[in-house]
Amino acid sequence: MKKGCRYNCVPTTSTTTGCLCACLSGCSQPLLELVQQAPWISWPKISWLLFVFFSSDIEISRAQSPKAVDVLAKEIGLLTDEIEIYGQTKAKVRLSLLERLKDQPDGKYVLVAGITPTPLGEGKSTVTIGLVQALTAHLNINSFACLRQPSQGPTFGVKGGAAGGGYAQVIPMEEFNLHLTGDIHAITAANNLLAAAIDARILHENTQSDKSLYNRLVPVVNGVRGFSAIQLARLRRLGISKTDPETLTEEEISKFVRLDIDPSTITWQRVVDTNDRFLRKITVGQANTEKGLVRQAQFDIAVASEIMAILALTTSLQDMKERLGKMVVANDKKGEPVTAEDLGVTGALAVLMKDAIKPTLMQTLEGTPVFVHAGPFANIAHGNSSVLADKIALKLVGEKGFVVTEAGFGADIGMEKFFNIKCRASGLVPSVVVLVATVRALKMHGGGPNVTAGAPLKKEYTEENLQLVADGCCNLQKQIQITQLFGVPVVVALNVFKTDSPAEVDLVCKIAKESGAFDAVPCNHWSAGGRGAVKLAQAVEKAANQKNSFKYLYNLELPIVEKIRIIAQKVYGAQDVELSPIAQSQVDRYTRQGFGNLPICMAKTHLSLSHQPERKGVPTGFILPISDVRASIGAGFIYPLVGTMSTMPGLPTRPCFYDIDLDPITEQVKGLF
Amino acid sequence: MKKGCRYNCVPTTSTTTGCLCACLSGCSQPLLELVQQAPWISWPKISWLLFVFFSSDIEISRAQSPKAVDVLAKEIGLLTDEIEIYGQTKAKVRLSLLERLKDQPDGKYVLVAGITPTPLGEGKSTVTIGLVQALTAHLNINSFACLRQPSQGPTFGVKGGAAGGGYAQVIPMEEFNLHLTGDIHAITAANNLLAAAIDARILHENTQSDKSLYNRLVPVVNGVRGFSAIQLARLRRLGISKTDPETLTEEEISKFVRLDIDPSTITWQRVVDTNDRFLRKITVGQANTEKGLVRQAQFDIAVASEIMAILALTTSLQDMKERLGKMVVANDKKGEPVTAEDLGVTGALAVLMKDAIKPTLMQTLEGTPVFVHAGPFANIAHGNSSVLADKIALKLVGEKGFVVTEAGFGADIGMEKFFNIKCRASGLVPSVVVLVATVRALKMHGGGPNVTAGAPLKKEYTEENLQLVADGCCNLQKQIQITQLFGVPVVVALNVFKTDSPAEVDLVCKIAKESGAFDAVPCNHWSAGGRGAVKLAQAVEKAANQKNSFKYLYNLELPIVEKIRIIAQKVYGAQDVELSPIAQSQVDRYTRQGFGNLPICMAKTHLSLSHQPERKGVPTGFILPISDVRASIGAGFIYPLVGTMSTMPGLPTRPCFYDIDLDPITEQVKGLF
Repeated sequence: MKKGCRYNCVPTTSTTTGCLCACLSGCSQPLLELVQQAPWISWPKISWLLFVFFSSDIEISRAQSPKAVDVLAKEIGLLTDEIEIYGQTKAKVRLSLLERLKDQPDGKYVLVAGITPTPLGEGKSTVTIGLVQALTAHLNINSFACLRQPSQGPTFGVKGGAAGGGYAQVIPMEEFNLHLTGDIHAITAANNLLAAAIDARILHENTQSDKSLYNRLVPVVNGVRGFSAIQLARLRRLGISKTDPETLTEEEISKFVRLDIDPSTITWQRVVDTNDRFLRKITVGQANTEKGLVRQAQFDIAVASEIMAILALTTSLQDMKERLGKMVVANDKKGEPVTAEDLGVTGALAVLMKDAIKPTLMQTLEGTPVFVHAGPFANIAHGNSSVLADKIALKLVGEKGFVVTEAGFGADIGMEKFFNIKCRASGLVPSVVVLVATVRALKMHGGGPNVTAGAPLKKEYTEENLQLVADGCCNLQKQIQITQLFGVPVVVALNVFKTDSPAEVDLVCKIAKESGAFDAVPCNHWSAGGRGAVKLAQAVEKAANQKNSFKYLYNLELPIVEKIRIIAQKVYGAQDVELSPIAQSQVDRYTRQGFGNLPICMAKTHLSLSHQPERKGVPTGFILPISDVRASIGAGFIYPLVGTMSTMPGLPTRPCFYDIDLDPITEQVKGLF
Repeated sequence: MKKGCRYNCVPTTSTTTGCLCACLSGCSQPLLELVQQAPWISWPKISWLLFVFFSSDIEISRAQSPKAVDVLAKEIGLLTDEIEIYGQTKAKVRLSLLERLKDQPDGKYVLVAGITPTPLGEGKSTVTIGLVQALTAHLNINSFACLRQPSQGPTFGVKGGAAGGGYAQVIPMEEFNLHLTGDIHAITAANNLLAAAIDARILHENTQSDKSLYNRLVPVVNGVRGFSAIQLARLRRLGISKTDPETLTEEEISKFVRLDIDPSTITWQRVVDTNDRFLRKITVGQANTEKGLVRQAQFDIAVASEIMAILALTTSLQDMKERLGKMVVANDKKGEPVTAEDLGVTGALAVLMKDAIKPTLMQTLEGTPVFVHAGPFANIAHGNSSVLADKIALKLVGEKGFVVTEAGFGADIGMEKFFNIKCRASGLVPSVVVLVATVRALKMHGGGPNVTAGAPLKKEYTEENLQLVADGCCNLQKQIQITQLFGVPVVVALNVFKTDSPAEVDLVCKIAKESGAFDAVPCNHWSAGGRGAVKLAQAVEKAANQKNSFKYLYNLELPIVEKIRIIAQKVYGAQDVELSPIAQSQVDRYTRQGFGNLPICMAKTHLSLSHQPERKGVPTGFILPISDVRASIGAGFIYPLVGTMSTMPGLPTRPCFYDIDLDPITEQVKGLF
């Protein structure tokens, strides 16, 4: 076994009696088998290199030459003018395709979710990639994986890359993990332009008379004075139908020029795509030029921006622009919401986001297509990739094809939001849920010792322990039940590690099936690529033909607190919820402002079904504390904070970047994993 | 004359008796003439649209369909594997080209500089574009324009776009003005990763013992404990030759794990590419998780980052990586410099910048090639586009071709830094300086009233006033003399506006020639495209064949203060310089640390030859105050601050974004100019 090969090379399924690691022992058969012709794939030159000493994720990624993205695009039926190529291996896909294929029936829609994970993650991304590799490269069925773009913060902090792993990866993984096609940078730019506009506006309103503000906001240009389009829209919202700037009364001018933002109500924060813990709480405006208008603020990680959520949920350019304009950034001194549109910045935000709205096409290690688009975290945001990528992919795969999309963290977190928020925005109906489990995580839920990133695993996790597995299956059972609340068939994918014993694997599959799963299948995609997920693919295909009675968990018309309670009780298993006075007053405010009918996006730890990360298994009898409630009006959800949730990760003592390097001669990236 | 056409359509040169505006009066002759075949251009389909009502810069830009960038790349001799296409109209060019063409002689190297400008700018970018359009599309001479990438801060703040203007533009201008190929975003990401690493490191050193730090910095992974490459390099710098982590003494461990950064000496600031004035002075670290380690800090505009300066000055990937590692971010408590390399982040920064190092290929309105690469401001940084873009372009145009590059603001600012900093880094010798002047700016220097952005021009600027022009030519004369200090021939390009009288134009050209310019030529590229700059191109061609005795202004071996004094006296015309105590102590510190032999990058207002923006013409008798001195060791210069220089612009009451919009149906951008 080589460095970096963490999983079982001789797994329980006889079709995968070797993995590429086998080349160490001289067996090249698995390599040849692996390189099977897929319906979309024409590899004139398969360039698997010899892995003798190394097989870290990035080395595996690099050893496979990706096909040119224009070739891939052609294979999957995209027209030349429907793609915008970014280098050799990435392309943005134009939304015009949705219009061209509007009469084409959608493919099957598969969601990959998980049980409550350890801090190491249980391999949902590798399952997603392994599954599409199996479907397309091994079963000749069209498929598409739709993934989230990873944040660069964790990439250079503690997590490393997020392109999958082993022989189930998106390649080139360094392109996937770095700037990609700039979408998160565009979000950062748009988010921070709005933030700068808020504070600058407060400053200018504080230091100028109505008349002076009016003269500056509506200046005479080439002898003519006129309102801009966005100013005319504001006048209409204020009930002023005049269009000639010279005819406004003093009172109308005052209403028009003063947003009168109450600085204590600003909810719009600045963002960076860096793990910068010192920006968690800051004071801004301390230079003399800002005239003493200091206030406390914070930076969030860029993927926590509401603009990221909008990117993930929008259905068109028109829809995105409307959502951007509706974003509420603060209240005025009368308690009314102030929006991006009020600040005059909607058009500029849309311009900054005009390319980000197009999904990015990449490929798996086995040459099958992948969309990478949007990347909200699942604990502090809704944790799903974009509606647009899924919609386009569903058209491209055709009626018999499969689109596999992924929801962050456990099913209680990412999946619940997938159904109640994303499916509501898209109108799409999922066919199957794949629930990813590992023996490691189940042992933790069964009472095993703490699992910590960076520390070696305790022996409970490396030796057979059927009791721990059996006890921990309660979490799997609960997550299956949560899935069933939504009426969609569930297939359990057991992501097999080399330390898992056959008896442990069998036990998990048995309990999963007894708990209501349509099927439960061990998977070995990490070590064997798509071949290691063929059984999973077959199970998913069968499940997709099952009766499907998909339903949302709650009606939007219910009061905000009632919707929170339904999620807390039915999904998390809480006895009840308890709102802090701040949370309650925010609920009252949003209800009064007319935002009560939005779905709920819980910000909760992903490490437990409850709000307490240390409570594993299936906690019961707890009261879920709601410390605050916020609203993302543009994205379209109410966003309760469960306990304390950090929106800015930090750098550890030894960040990942210690191992990351660039060879200046070969231009190869080292140390991403 | 249509909306947006600010210049003279019937200028003094008979070859440009019409401009595209003439289509209003039914004359299409100029359009046809303009669309002339260039040596590199094959336009199968010229799609000039009818301009009947509109001709803003963005509308002119949009009316011309750019040729596909791969076609352009082929025309100029690039191989298929030497470009990375980004959409239809942009491509990054690989540095491997420099190796392939290393035996090809360089073309002529032309710098476009200016006189001391008004706050409106005098059109250096349009001259640069007009000149290459004239050279290539009208005189059949190979040429390349090398431009800086504009910061999005001013684009959405007060300035608008920077793609040139009228019929001398880079197209598509919205691509040029927005994210381009993500270089500034990459700089922001790299800059802020380093900033986060500094504060996080201080926190971890403050809260852990030597042993705990060591265990975390050099962890046991899979049973093995080893130093990473960058840690071994640090050990060598500390004089520790051991490579086995188990053999270090306690004292060696302490030396290794503690950077011991003195927070009060941190010079590395965070950046955003947004005009966010409330970040000029902030307090960071106020969350409980940061254990009271609050400190005052600031955000600069992204283009002020040292990483931007490095991008502009680097000559290869290897050189960039070395420069990134050498960046000094603070001192330790003993007064020794702490570098990015000490923080272990060099490789990660290089990885983040691996694509940004490749220049971006675009085209002018007349289909001639343009490189856009790097964009440091000229007042707070060195104000020049990249050495690499110039070097590649000089190879591509061939011996008889021309590369036209631009230095920011007046010749006292951008040009002085071009010669003393950029030419030192590149080893290139410029052939000609084009000095751009306008009658408007000369009248201001002659005593005309204030010129303010947004306010209508006073009548002195719209009516003939030969006396003001004559008096103001002192500034032009002085800037010619500054150019002559460097031994390079200078051609004055008078950027003609429609309000300039023939007598004013003649007077400026006469005085310019009497003051030592090789030639002085009125230009009408704004209204007439390349055709309006043909005479300029001819003058530049002649000047390039003149004797050239290029020399630097000062020896690097001189003491720092002496070098500052030479610039102040010989270039600015100061009587002397005066260093604040802080500035003096910084000079002493840098000299002691071994950084005394670097060139000088003055941070000075661009609105006057002196440090006082209101002093126009040629101020004399002033003492130049140096308030502080900083060092950009990676970029390779010492950086004195003349008076107070803001490194973060602000948003005005009515930012540009009020007019910027996106049509969601056509996907067209409106309101960029």
